Amino acid sequence: MFEKHIKELNKQAMITAKKRLDNLSKPLDSLGWLEDVIVQICGILGTDHPNLDKKNITIMCADNGVIDEGVSQVGFEVTTIVANNFTKNITAVNHFSNYFKQEISVIDIGMKETLDNPLIINKKISNGTNNMVNGPAMTKKQAIDAINVGILQVKELKEKGYSLVGTGEMGIGNTTTSTAILHVFIDDDLEKITGYGAGLSEDGLKRKIIAIEKAIDINKPDKNDPIDVLSKVGGYDIAGMCGLFIGGAIYGLPIIIDGYISSIAALLAYKLCPACKEFMIPSHGSYEPGTKFVFEQLGLKPVLQMEMRLGEGTGASMIMGIIDLAYTTYCNMGTFEDANVIPYKKYEKG
Amino acid sequence: MFEKHIKELNKQAMITAKKRLDNLSKPLDSLGWLEDVIVQICGILGTDHPNLDKKNITIMCADNGVIDEGVSQVGFEVTTIVANNFTKNITAVNHFSNYFKQEISVIDIGMKETLDNPLIINKKISNGTNNMVNGPAMTKKQAIDAINVGILQVKELKEKGYSLVGTGEMGIGNTTTSTAILHVFIDDDLEKITGYGAGLSEDGLKRKIIAIEKAIDINKPDKNDPIDVLSKVGGYDIAGMCGLFIGGAIYGLPIIIDGYISSIAALLAYKLCPACKEFMIPSHGSYEPGTKFVFEQLGLKPVLQMEMRLGEGTGASMIMGIIDLAYTTYCNMGTFEDANVIPYKKYEKG
Repeated sequence: MFEKHIKELNKQAMITAKKRLDNLSKPLDSLGWLEDVIVQICGILGTDHPNLDKKNITIMCADNGVIDEGVSQVGFEVTTIVANNFTKNITAVNHFSNYFKQEISVIDIGMKETLDNPLIINKKISNGTNNMVNGPAMTKKQAIDAINVGILQVKELKEKGYSLVGTGEMGIGNTTTSTAILHVFIDDDLEKITGYGAGLSEDGLKRKIIAIEKAIDINKPDKNDPIDVLSKVGGYDIAGMCGLFIGGAIYGLPIIIDGYISSIAALLAYKLCPACKEFMIPSHGSYEPGTKFVFEQLGLKPVLQMEMRLGEGTGASMIMGIIDLAYTTYCNMGTFEDANVIPYKKYEKG
Repeated sequence: MFEKHIKELNKQAMITAKKRLDNLSKPLDSLGWLEDVIVQICGILGTDHPNLDKKNITIMCADNGVIDEGVSQVGFEVTTIVANNFTKNITAVNHFSNYFKQEISVIDIGMKETLDNPLIINKKISNGTNNMVNGPAMTKKQAIDAINVGILQVKELKEKGYSLVGTGEMGIGNTTTSTAILHVFIDDDLEKITGYGAGLSEDGLKRKIIAIEKAIDINKPDKNDPIDVLSKVGGYDIAGMCGLFIGGAIYGLPIIIDGYISSIAALLAYKLCPACKEFMIPSHGSYEPGTKFVFEQLGLKPVLQMEMRLGEGTGASMIMGIIDLAYTTYCNMGTFEDANVIPYKKYEKG
């Protein structure tokens, strides 16, 4: 549905970037993924020397009706409090993004409570989703509206000169919705892909699995219709991030995948529009057991393996820092000529 | 032989650090490895609030006689040039360490040529090792002297107030010596663990395998005597880094493993003195096929998977940046009280 709006990567910019990398005084390809990601970003931004100064992390905050089933250790009020804390500069992602000079956008895309806080962008679709064990979490229109929030956020960031966008979320209950979506798509053993989220008890884990089973049973989401899946067993946070990935492909911005929930949003975007994948950059592999399966579906590989499971955009922030480092090196490192070294030869491997 | 000099980690500092981490406003353990590494560093440095301002990367530069066998695309002059370039601030590791405000020490521990450059610390054991296919690369005394260079470097860094030390190397031919050492220890299929290094041709790879076989055949290193292995089929760069790891354990400094060659040095240190392991911090998993096997032997897991194969300390630099980020977050992030959130409960997993 979005395919016709998608940009193509600028092949010439990618070739020029790779040529520069090959001419830097180091063995060919020896910076590995750091080289690949620079080439990809140059392709997305359409130039071999983009300005990467302005970086943003967009955090989608929403509540999930399914927490009524006891699938989380804490209640929806924690979504509200942490969303508020993002604007008070005291959360983990604040410290990460401060360290790497990235800005944060906090979007209320569907929190149960509404905060009187001008630093939170109000794009609320409704006051939390419905409990998916009783019927669809949201209507299809609400799902599409939430996706559009993400797309428009990228449009705005592009207009403001941002060149790298990280995804993040805050939404109690969202490993439950994420796992429900994954289960619909891969139909694998639910016990294998369901994890403890932010720290469930064994009983909580059982309730989580039962809730996912019930929700899929009552809603019968159609795995060939991603919007159907998203609206029935997803959440606004996931929908909003899905929109960020689609927006990246429409407006030509690299979008960084964060943790488990973000990767589920990436998978939805990819299912809606496979060309989106070229605009996605993976960061870390979450501790959640579903992670491995999502990335298999996406055909992408997270490069940080730190068993993190915090969300908020912390993994995205970290890899954006690493990208900034790689790009600085790409721009400033000596060439073979500067370094007084004869260039390495390229051999095809047998 | 070093065991009796090794410090113990400060358990109380580790408990206090973990308590603080558990009290930060985030799900328990949700920063994964970042929490583990902070606890480890606090244990090594003996306080829950160490000063991590001064960070160093020590690059051991040496030449390997085995390059006469055609196991590298370039000659020993590249060791000289790149060692010199470290002091001209134009290499990859310079840009990495500048980015994260780390200092570099460049040590000539056995380069063939001697540069008239006051920024290179001259600790030369000899002008390169002998070609190991004709006999031992060095004497046992030279191996021990080279290890001592590393140990004394850490002593000096400790006295100067450094709190985090990265390892790095520059030495044409050192994936050949590294793989020879690994092969002696694990006696696995040589074809499986030998890689293209900085970019060998297929013929070069064959020569590399033959050279390793010859060197082991003629020298018959004793796998139960790490110094014997190191002296016969190793190099000064590896010996020097091995000394850094041992020095870390003696003087109580965390030492960061860099890529493949550095991990081989870590393995030697571990074999010489298993207690060293608690002072080691892994960074990235190199593209070299032996990497997986070394880390299995070490029982450690690299957290960055970027298919890098540059050395110089680039991987160590990157993870030291991430550690700095994690530590800043640990020191400054809001507690549950600051954040107005009820702490998460800890459940034992079944």
